[in-house]
Parts: sequence; C-alpha cells; structure tokens
Amino acid sequence: MAEPVEPVILVLDAAPSPRLGRLTGRARVRYADGRNLAELLPAADVLLVWDFTSDAVRAAWPGDGPRPRWVHTASAGVDRLLCPELAASGTVVTNARGVFELPVAEYVAGLVLAFAKDLPRTLELQRQRRWRHRETRQLSGSRAVVVGAGPIGREIMRLLHGLGVRVALVGRTARRSIHGPEDLDRLAAGADWVICAAPLTESTRGMFDARFFGLLQPYARFINVGRGPVVVEDDLAEALRRRWIAGAALDVFQEEPLGQDSPLWDAPGLVVSPHMSGDTAGWRDRLGEQFVSMYERWAAGEALPNVVDIQRGYVPSTDIPA
Amino acid sequence: MAEPVEPVILVLDAAPSPRLGRLTGRARVRYADGRNLAELLPAADVLLVWDFTSDAVRAAWPGDGPRPRWVHTASAGVDRLLCPELAASGTVVTNARGVFELPVAEYVAGLVLAFAKDLPRTLELQRQRRWRHRETRQLSGSRAVVVGAGPIGREIMRLLHGLGVRVALVGRTARRSIHGPEDLDRLAAGADWVICAAPLTESTRGMFDARFFGLLQPYARFINVGRGPVVVEDDLAEALRRRWIAGAALDVFQEEPLGQDSPLWDAPGLVVSPHMSGDTAGWRDRLGEQFVSMYERWAAGEALPNVVDIQRGYVPSTDIPA
Repeated sequence: MAEPVEPVILVLDAAPSPRLGRLTGRARVRYADGRNLAELLPAADVLLVWDFTSDAVRAAWPGDGPRPRWVHTASAGVDRLLCPELAASGTVVTNARGVFELPVAEYVAGLVLAFAKDLPRTLELQRQRRWRHRETRQLSGSRAVVVGAGPIGREIMRLLHGLGVRVALVGRTARRSIHGPEDLDRLAAGADWVICAAPLTESTRGMFDARFFGLLQPYARFINVGRGPVVVEDDLAEALRRRWIAGAALDVFQEEPLGQDSPLWDAPGLVVSPHMSGDTAGWRDRLGEQFVSMYERWAAGEALPNVVDIQRGYVPSTDIPA
Repeated sequence: MAEPVEPVILVLDAAPSPRLGRLTGRARVRYADGRNLAELLPAADVLLVWDFTSDAVRAAWPGDGPRPRWVHTASAGVDRLLCPELAASGTVVTNARGVFELPVAEYVAGLVLAFAKDLPRTLELQRQRRWRHRETRQLSGSRAVVVGAGPIGREIMRLLHGLGVRVALVGRTARRSIHGPEDLDRLAAGADWVICAAPLTESTRGMFDARFFGLLQPYARFINVGRGPVVVEDDLAEALRRRWIAGAALDVFQEEPLGQDSPLWDAPGLVVSPHMSGDTAGWRDRLGEQFVSMYERWAAGEALPNVVDIQRGYVPSTDIPA
C-alpha cells in the first residue's frame, strides 16, 4: 500500500519558523525566499507567508503552473501579497487575526497616555537635568476617533473606553455602532485623538493628507498603527511643523525601515517607532502555533477561520463576532 | 446693629488663590508666607495651606496665641504640616481627597504602559535615527502590587485592573480585599510592577530600601507617586545600576526640586518627573473650588469631609466609601 503523500507547506523567508516542527510527519515543510519562490510555488499545497514585509508573493504568483490552494500570512494586513491573479485564482487567503489585537491596543493606549502626560518632554527635560513642572491632560473624558473597525480597531476602542475615553469607530460602511466614512471629518474635527488601524486598500491609501490634518484641533494627536501608505507623510510632517496638530506617532511607514535621512525622525511632536506595536514577547511563537492549529483544520477538510475577503482586502468584520 | 464679623481665612503662600473671590462678603481672606505666618496665625479662623511644599506650618504652629479651628491643605499628603502641637490642639485638619485620584492613576497607567512598550528606548533610538525593532511586553496578565490603600491607591488599582493587570493592594492593616504589610515581601517578589501611593508616616519612611529592592524580580519596575522619603534613593539608584530591577519612575523625591547634581537624573532605567502626577490642567481651579465648597459647609456648622486622622497621618480609608 502506497504511503499517503504529505502536503507541501512552502514557507516564505524564515528558516526555521517556530512551532512548525509539530507538523513533522503530517506535512513537508520547505523554505523559499524572494529569488526561488516562483520556482517552488507550483509544488506547494500551502504557502505560509512568514515574512509579511516581502513583496515576493505578488511578484511570483502571476507565473506558470499550479498554485497553492491556501495562503496564510503571519500578519493582520494582506496588502503586500494580494494581486489580481491571486484574487482570481480561487485560493483561500487567511490572516493572523487574534494575535495582534491586544498588543496593538495596549501600544496605542500607552502612546495616548504618554502624550496626555507629556512623557516625551519629561524624558527630554530629564536628559537636561531640568526640573520643570507642567500641567498635564486628563485622559478620561477626552474624545478619540478610531479609523478601522476590524478586530484591532475594536480592541483599541475597548481599552480606551476602559480608560474613560469617548471613542467613535469609523469603518468602511456605517452599521450598528460603527460610523461610515461620511462621518469621519466631523468626528475628527472634535477629537483629541485620531487613531488609524485601517487596512491598506485603494480607498484608504493616502486618506490622511493635508486636507484631513487641516480639519483637526491644534491639541489633537494622530496615531497610525495600520499601514504606512494610508498617511501622506510629507503632509503630516508639514502639519506638525505648522502646529496644526499637537503631535503624532507613527509605527508604520511608506518605506520600512525608515531611511536615516527621513525628515520624520525629527518632526516636532512626532514619535517614530519601528513597526513593533503588535510584537509582544512570544509573538512569533503565537503566530507559529496559530498556523499549526489552522493547518490541522485544513488537513482535516474543515473550514478555515480568518478568511480574507480578497476583493475588500481584509477579513470582513461581519464575519467576526462583535 | 453690629455687622456680623466675617471669619478670617489665612492662605499660606499664594496670592491670589483661584476661586477664593467667591467668598467675598463671607470671609476675609489674608495671605501669609513663611516669614509672617507665626505672626498672623492667632487672628486666623481657618488656615488654607495652598503651598503644600512648605514647612512653615510645622515651624509656626507651636508659637503663642490662639490657633485656627480648621486647617485645610490643598494636597493629598499632610506630612509637611503635622506636628505634635497641631495634633494636640483639637484643630480639624482636612485634605484635598477627590482631586488627585484619577490624574495620579492615569499617570501611573501611562508609566506602566510606557515601560511595557519600551517607549523611553524608542524615543532614545529615534533621536539617534536608528530603526531597531524590539519585542515588547504584554501588560494584560502582568502583576502589580500597589502600596497604599487610600483613594489614590485604589484608583490606581481600578485603572490597572481595567487594563488586565492582576493587582494586589497593600494597606496599613489587612481588611476585606486589602493585604496587610506582612504580605508585602511575598507579593513584591512576584510582581512586575511595584507602585507606591502610600502617605509619609513614621512606618513608611524609608521602607523601600536595599533589602526591599533585593526581593524584586530583575524584570520588575518600581514607581513612586506617594512621597519622596518613603524611598531610600541611594539604594534605588544602586539597585538600578546593579540591574536588580529593570527600571523605576520617581515623581517625588526626598528634596524637591531635585538638585542638578543628583545621581538620579541619569540612573539607568529611571524616569524622573517633577512632582506632577496629579496636576492635570485646571487642578488649581479644582482645589480652589473644593476649598470654597468645604468652607461653605464649615461656615454653616456642618461636618467637614476629608478629615485627616492626625495620629495616623492620613484620612482613614474606613471612612471612605469602598
């Protein structure tokens, strides 16, 4: 009797990935990088996009031969890998929903509190050995707008709400307690905090521009933990220099890593962090464990969770328990 | 018919104090400073200690002549003004309970999140234009010990609990859900965060010393928003230099302002802030309004709230609704 053939899992760009050893005997794990992905893709049943910063999938996918039936990305965003050929292929695409929500929300709460309590300035004065008492802001009772009504945006809302912040959530379409894009300008104009946790799609690209920053209050602060290209970075830097807004924090950028000569590093009131908001200790293990458990369902012929709506570019929140 | 004589309110060291204008026609407001307080004290019915950093009351009180029947301090702590003669005088002492709880708790939550998310290092790397991804810590699920079970300690517990932190509260005596001092060492040894919101009394002075810091985990961080002298500062600096603990934040000090040559300014992992944790915008107005409303009760012969137990040195929490 012939041995059953184990499915091939092709992993993009990380060898070895944590926790995949558990699949020994149940799958053949192969590794690819940007150079040989196109060549190895036809033999893969499953593609695990471990290096979600790579554009290799989008480059390799349109080539010849069979394609994996399932692509999983170890990230929340899927913008780096989607291409028309993948969208048309019938391949199931899943993401890492469940891993990043709480870490990102805690990170945002930390930034908001650090701004309210003027912590960056405190650290600067400490370096200068200067004792300068200032009044700070009370967070409770302030107003936030969270753009992006997916699981990350909703977790941000939950944590800020627990700190007494009045939070409005803006999604792609108005539904239940979520505002549609038509309410964004009005809500942002009255907000202390504007927080972007939106996916990168054709409708979010560049949405935070000079026009938008011009709507905000001079005491407002803008935080982006979504994707870099939703922000027109030059416009944000200019809004900060002109003091249209009081400050901002970017964890994601148009180009990552941010170039050493970028004017963002020293834009006034801007906190620059290296795309780390979701990455609490053990995150790689959690991503590996999540993939293993999803693989077990896939191999058993069960339905996969976290399926991305390829047309929209994210997991529709109507599929997520509220 | 003789006009009724308006009571004299003597205000220590701030002219004019906000909101006291509302008492026009109902009280005669006089101002004193450290030099003439002893001279003016006998004519005062009420003493408002606006400058709570002053030792003038303790110095002037033991002198001759009548003494005010009521002393109110625009602060949470009363350690600066208590002396044996005041304790024996029968004068009622009240504090500013209700004004500082939420601001201080938000400040502590901000420090805890900033440490968990490694924000001080992020700002340092930003200054150097260096992109260095790090893993951060998840706050939810971590353990905190809050020393001081008064209104500020309890508000810190409430906010941290809302962020998923498992919080133990340590008070002067064990009661209901509050631990007694006998549990502190054991709780601190398992804590990620040790937070001091205790009053300065003879039993808290110097309680955080080398012995105590030696009990903590190397990943623990210590935060003091209570009173400076509860910490042996040299011991804390040494514990940080030896990496016994991962970091600390002090908002209060043995001497304030902190001297320019203090070794605390650049102790590794230490955040130094200038006694500002409770001072959100409008705090002076809120303190003034609180005094005016208490004065109205006092003038009407009603019982005063926020009465300090002079023997213990704080408002007993058994008198505070839980």
